[in-house]
Amino acid sequence: MTAKHRWTTRVRWSEVDPAGIVFYPRFFEWFDLATESLFESLGQPWPIIFPLYDIVGVPIAESGAKFTAPVRYGDEVAIDSVVAQVEEKTFRVEHEVRVGDIVCARGFELRAWVGRPAQPSDRLRARAIPEEIVKVLKDGVENSHA
Amino acid sequence: MTAKHRWTTRVRWSEVDPAGIVFYPRFFEWFDLATESLFESLGQPWPIIFPLYDIVGVPIAESGAKFTAPVRYGDEVAIDSVVAQVEEKTFRVEHEVRVGDIVCARGFELRAWVGRPAQPSDRLRARAIPEEIVKVLKDGVENSHA
Amino acid sequence: MTAKHRWTTRVRWSEVDPAGIVFYPRFFEWFDLATESLFESLGQPWPIIFPLYDIVGVPIAESGAKFTAPVRYGDEVAIDSVVAQVEEKTFRVEHEVRVGDIVCARGFELRAWVGRPAQPSDRLRARAIPEEIVKVLKDGVENSHA
Amino acid sequence: MTAKHRWTTRVRWSEVDPAGIVFYPRFFEWFDLATESLFESLGQPWPIIFPLYDIVGVPIAESGAKFTAPVRYGDEVAIDSVVAQVEEKTFRVEHEVRVGDIVCARGFELRAWVGRPAQPSDRLRARAIPEEIVKVLKDGVENSHA
Repeated sequence: MTAKHRWTTRVRWSEVDPAGIVFYPRFFEWFDLATESLFESLGQPWPIIFPLYDIVGVPIAESGAKFTAPVRYGDEVAIDSVVAQVEEKTFRVEHEVRVGDIVCARGFELRAWVGRPAQPSDRLRARAIPEEIVKVLKDGVENSHA
Repeated sequence: MTAKHRWTTRVRWSEVDPAGIVFYPRFFEWFDLATESLFESLGQPWPIIFPLYDIVGVPIAESGAKFTAPVRYGDEVAIDSVVAQVEEKTFRVEHEVRVGDIVCARGFELRAWVGRPAQPSDRLRARAIPEEIVKVLKDGVENSHA
Repeated sequence: MTAKHRWTTRVRWSEVDPAGIVFYPRFFEWFDLATESLFESLGQPWPIIFPLYDIVGVPIAESGAKFTAPVRYGDEVAIDSVVAQVEEKTFRVEHEVRVGDIVCARGFELRAWVGRPAQPSDRLRARAIPEEIVKVLKDGVENSHA
Repeated sequence: MTAKHRWTTRVRWSEVDPAGIVFYPRFFEWFDLATESLFESLGQPWPIIFPLYDIVGVPIAESGAKFTAPVRYGDEVAIDSVVAQVEEKTFRVEHEVRVGDIVCARGFELRAWVGRPAQPSDRLRARAIPEEIVKVLKDGVENSHA
């Protein structure tokens, strides 16, 4: 069983556009926050592990989403995220966005483990994900503690 | 020949994250701006046509992108957008993001033509895209003026 | 005693700029969220009361802030907000932003109670704040229930 | 005569809230962009001078604005910025926001010249603004070239 996690948010005034629905790039901001929260639930908070492993972060190689129902100001949004795949240098997270029982969007992120370059302007290179991170992503934290 | 257009932007300080690269949801904001600019280049500016056709806008049904090279603060970004498909109620725009000669990302948007509901909370429904809009999306503005 | 409230947030990756500190307009976004949360704590959630009183919202007439210490990615931020003044059509909220014991910023918002115009493009006009809203803003909710 | 500059922008869909007017923190984002553009007009583009002078940037010590007329989607906005004061380590820029002939907002920024710390988490300290920067801020570029 791979890691999974639920992250919730209330739709902010600033996230809604003049059409009265959430501006679609905000869903990708939520995916980012949901993945960050998933890492935290696994005992791997980004503000700690990014400097610890000397990485710039886990930038996106690919992302996408289908939007099936509008989300509005004040809605309580739940995002269920699951680690769908872990490769040597990348991992894939899949997200399902709900308001109550309605699935409003489904999306994914393919992220890479990218080291901090010697100089800020140097080329960014993906590195092998450390074994202990692979383990929690693959097993989820309950299994890894079993 | 379908409509195409180049939109350019300079990367803003606020678009770059602590890793020194553009935060990935900002690319989707750029896709939105590039599509808006494409419509304007076709003589169909959104601030005019949304009320004119009584639509809430052209919300996203699906979107996605692959990111192949980082984009940094101050970079001059060019986005080439092309209308790849026009269906009865939806259309697809494909975007290519370059900094100089480097392709940094490729993405797409599938958008629907959505009417303004009687009440703000009513269900949103896609409508048939008006013929004159279909024409400029399919032909581009030069062809339509030929 | 006027109404007061504490709202907390964790600093998001997207809120931090390439200098490694929170991009300053984000503090004003937090003030907005803190004021919204204050209203909710008074039993007056904006998603309910804006349509109920037929207002477009409580737009800003004036706002400002002094920034005294940087705030960084992952910081736990607490914002203490107090209603400092209530006039016929406007009210003033003052905000203090802390990370732990450090005061990082102090700011204020002067907001107006603005009715929904007949047409979206009509001029916006401030109206008298309803008596029951004035009461909770002035007394806080505990006092008003006493 | 101190430096001054006009920066223009078109209001973006994403900058407008469900009330149909620009969400107020966006004005502070515009002030940031207007000040950046002013520096560029003086031959001092931020992406060049921040690394050149080894500063993290010119963070805000204080900012504020009065909002007198709403700004809407699609509006052409002009911001006139003027350097109102230059001190040893700080400078003040004043901004006037217009749509056509209407002044919609007036605001200011007090910014500090802040060195890059040895470690990212070290305390940030303002430094003396270099003489050549003081000169262009005080004189404007035409005068400095006279």
